[in-house]
Amino acid sequence: MIFAEPFMNSTSWISSLFSPVPPTLLATTTEAENGPIVLTGVLLSLVVIYLASKLGGELSKRLDFPPVLGELVAGVVVGVSALHLVVFPESGMQASDSVVMTILQAINNLTPDALTSIFQSQSEVISVLAELGVIILLFEIGLESDLRQLKEVGYQATIVACVGVAVPFGAGTAGLMLLFNVPAIPAIFAGAALTATSIGITSKVLSELGQLKSKEGQIIVGAAVIDDVLGIIVLAVVASLAKTGEVDVFNVIYLIVSATVFLLGSILLGNFFNKSFVAIVDKLQTRGNIVIPAFIFAFFMAFLGNAIHLEAILGAFAAGLVLDETDKRKELDEQVKPIADILVPVFFVTVGARADLGVLNPAVPDNRAGLIIAIFLIVVAIVGKVVTGWSVFGQPGINRIAIGVGMIPRGEVGLVFAGIGSASGVLSKPLEAAIIIMVILTTFLAPPLLRVAFAKSATEQTDVAGEPQTLP
Amino acid sequence: MIFAEPFMNSTSWISSLFSPVPPTLLATTTEAENGPIVLTGVLLSLVVIYLASKLGGELSKRLDFPPVLGELVAGVVVGVSALHLVVFPESGMQASDSVVMTILQAINNLTPDALTSIFQSQSEVISVLAELGVIILLFEIGLESDLRQLKEVGYQATIVACVGVAVPFGAGTAGLMLLFNVPAIPAIFAGAALTATSIGITSKVLSELGQLKSKEGQIIVGAAVIDDVLGIIVLAVVASLAKTGEVDVFNVIYLIVSATVFLLGSILLGNFFNKSFVAIVDKLQTRGNIVIPAFIFAFFMAFLGNAIHLEAILGAFAAGLVLDETDKRKELDEQVKPIADILVPVFFVTVGARADLGVLNPAVPDNRAGLIIAIFLIVVAIVGKVVTGWSVFGQPGINRIAIGVGMIPRGEVGLVFAGIGSASGVLSKPLEAAIIIMVILTTFLAPPLLRVAFAKSATEQTDVAGEPQTLP
Repeated sequence: MIFAEPFMNSTSWISSLFSPVPPTLLATTTEAENGPIVLTGVLLSLVVIYLASKLGGELSKRLDFPPVLGELVAGVVVGVSALHLVVFPESGMQASDSVVMTILQAINNLTPDALTSIFQSQSEVISVLAELGVIILLFEIGLESDLRQLKEVGYQATIVACVGVAVPFGAGTAGLMLLFNVPAIPAIFAGAALTATSIGITSKVLSELGQLKSKEGQIIVGAAVIDDVLGIIVLAVVASLAKTGEVDVFNVIYLIVSATVFLLGSILLGNFFNKSFVAIVDKLQTRGNIVIPAFIFAFFMAFLGNAIHLEAILGAFAAGLVLDETDKRKELDEQVKPIADILVPVFFVTVGARADLGVLNPAVPDNRAGLIIAIFLIVVAIVGKVVTGWSVFGQPGINRIAIGVGMIPRGEVGLVFAGIGSASGVLSKPLEAAIIIMVILTTFLAPPLLRVAFAKSATEQTDVAGEPQTLP
Repeated sequence: MIFAEPFMNSTSWISSLFSPVPPTLLATTTEAENGPIVLTGVLLSLVVIYLASKLGGELSKRLDFPPVLGELVAGVVVGVSALHLVVFPESGMQASDSVVMTILQAINNLTPDALTSIFQSQSEVISVLAELGVIILLFEIGLESDLRQLKEVGYQATIVACVGVAVPFGAGTAGLMLLFNVPAIPAIFAGAALTATSIGITSKVLSELGQLKSKEGQIIVGAAVIDDVLGIIVLAVVASLAKTGEVDVFNVIYLIVSATVFLLGSILLGNFFNKSFVAIVDKLQTRGNIVIPAFIFAFFMAFLGNAIHLEAILGAFAAGLVLDETDKRKELDEQVKPIADILVPVFFVTVGARADLGVLNPAVPDNRAGLIIAIFLIVVAIVGKVVTGWSVFGQPGINRIAIGVGMIPRGEVGLVFAGIGSASGVLSKPLEAAIIIMVILTTFLAPPLLRVAFAKSATEQTDVAGEPQTLP
């Protein structure tokens, strides 16, 4: 509105000081006017995301990899690393870098300022759709998980999670300080980034391999959930350490208590809510009689999880676990499937799209130092999680390697660590690049590795019936 | 970020002038940081919207009204008129007016500036979800419609649409000029607002009454689609008249040609795409094998519709019509249902939430003048559409009153007219209020009236089996 040309940015910014309308009011007007154009951008982005997810997923399946790996790789292809079709302002992209925005620009003849505003709104919408995607994925995983079985493996999962946090954190931090002379604070931050496990990617692969309900699968999912909570606590500690040099003990205690109360409380309360849910659903006579009450519950739990500064996905997972215990489970399962089918790919494709493979380019000097540290981080990241399989006790004949491999992918959680580290400014460029490389590689290696780890046990037990969940 | 306390707003706005970071960059940083809080707001808003839609829909059904009426009324209750749970910046609301934002503020201790930014992002996301809702609704209506039957009633639908645009427009404009001495331009604008028909509301009620596939239902849907195109053309003419005093003939020709080419072209091309769609779906082996290709097509058509300055819903409707002709129809229908169930209520509740019933308060002097004009507009709005039933020829025994009543609701299209009129400044306060009252009343009256109009013919034909589509 105010800026006429890109090169006038600096002068017109000054002229905007004399604008009689406060900036916030201006933004409101612009957003109302740009509404249909934001929708155009969202629709085009969704078309690109769906095309990428199907092309990637199908190709991956033909090559005998889990489809989710293909969705991630397709995300990289359409994202910041290559085609620039799906990009986000958070990764330092401008509206003019986005191909979708360039198309909108050509159609609507927008001012650069309006385009920036549309780019931000559109990116915000796609980000939230992706987050709704992972919320629904975890809700579905909760529905597919068995609370009783999860309770049975609870101790093992807790130990796997604790080992999976302690070993990579200790080995990573110590190694960086001793081998690479990294100062304590950045070394601790990088060590913390090694602790994450992506529930989303792990559980999706398990589901695709038909292993979600196996004992190994339930241990991995349980451990990944606990790991997520531990990761949030580690992140809070490290972030306050980086900011103030001290640990905010109260915040840490608050997080531990609230996470425990939240997860156990929701399952206890769930036993009571179970019956009300069935009673309510039976009374409803209009469309969406099962799925809307279920989503009210799931989204409310996700809201609670977010509101107490845990994670929305933990709430959604708990909601799924609770509703799995009702006799509406089968119907609900069937109806959640198509909803997950259209929202979950948005999550995986955008995770891929946000990963900047530019850090892998050895021609850039900064990257070379990063690549060497990255090799160390990747070794710690894989070994530190694989060893967790051997911390499982009292389960003879269990597929220990599969459990360890299941904890490897850092995925979106790792990207969050890298993002916060980058924003806090404690990380050197090479170290930041090394963390991103570690996150990308563990994320992309885990699905095929998990496939191999389970294929061994599958051939031992049954035939090749390892993929019952691939088609509805 | 910059504002520390609410009462510092004015001074800190000035201090922000000296901020070294340009406003756009600041906004980007803020949005990335506020991401999880935007999600919290979206989740809470969705919980409110779903609760409202189910409470309203079920109550309406018990009282023997179409459920969608209850969703609209529940939207009014949670919206700008009453509880302020679901409000939008476009209606002049501030973040502090929103109960959801007040809750977020209490949880996160945000600065007013951050809260405004979160309010805008959250509203944008809910708006786009609502728009995706009506896109999927029209896609579903297209899937449920029968292209052959629609072609059969094509002439009748065209005549109904033309009469339904000409009569209210002529009578409204003339009446306002002669009876109320309104000047020509605002009178033409108000007349134009009378021409709209809400496909969304009409088709949803028809679907709920199980009348979508009846001859009357297909004429109404066909006429509403054509009316939508005519409405866009009328709006373009009136808006350019209001702005420049002249009619932009080229734009009008462009719209007529592009709308015709788009609708006919997509159906012709569709006959070819049909076979490719089935072939592609049969080859896919991963989850979402039907629904994702269908949504790629639907969203791409919606994008095209929006991009050529028509409407996204027209594209989605055309996509639904085309895919209805394939033998995947039944499977697709079943999978689209739950997706529609969670997105369509967002549309209806937000339509209700945006309607400001404050204009009905006779204690406000401005409203009194508005209420008198409103009575005139409502009479024209109803009579002008009901007469269209008698323009149907060659269909002996057809329920003419039902066709006329089906064209009554102005819904979201009427609100768009009122919004553009308000923004252009050509409407006087009373006239603007009168248009909004007319839109609200026709929207809320149409569902029960349509129910009565069809009940008559239903008792003549069969029993009370009028609601087969209410439950999946």
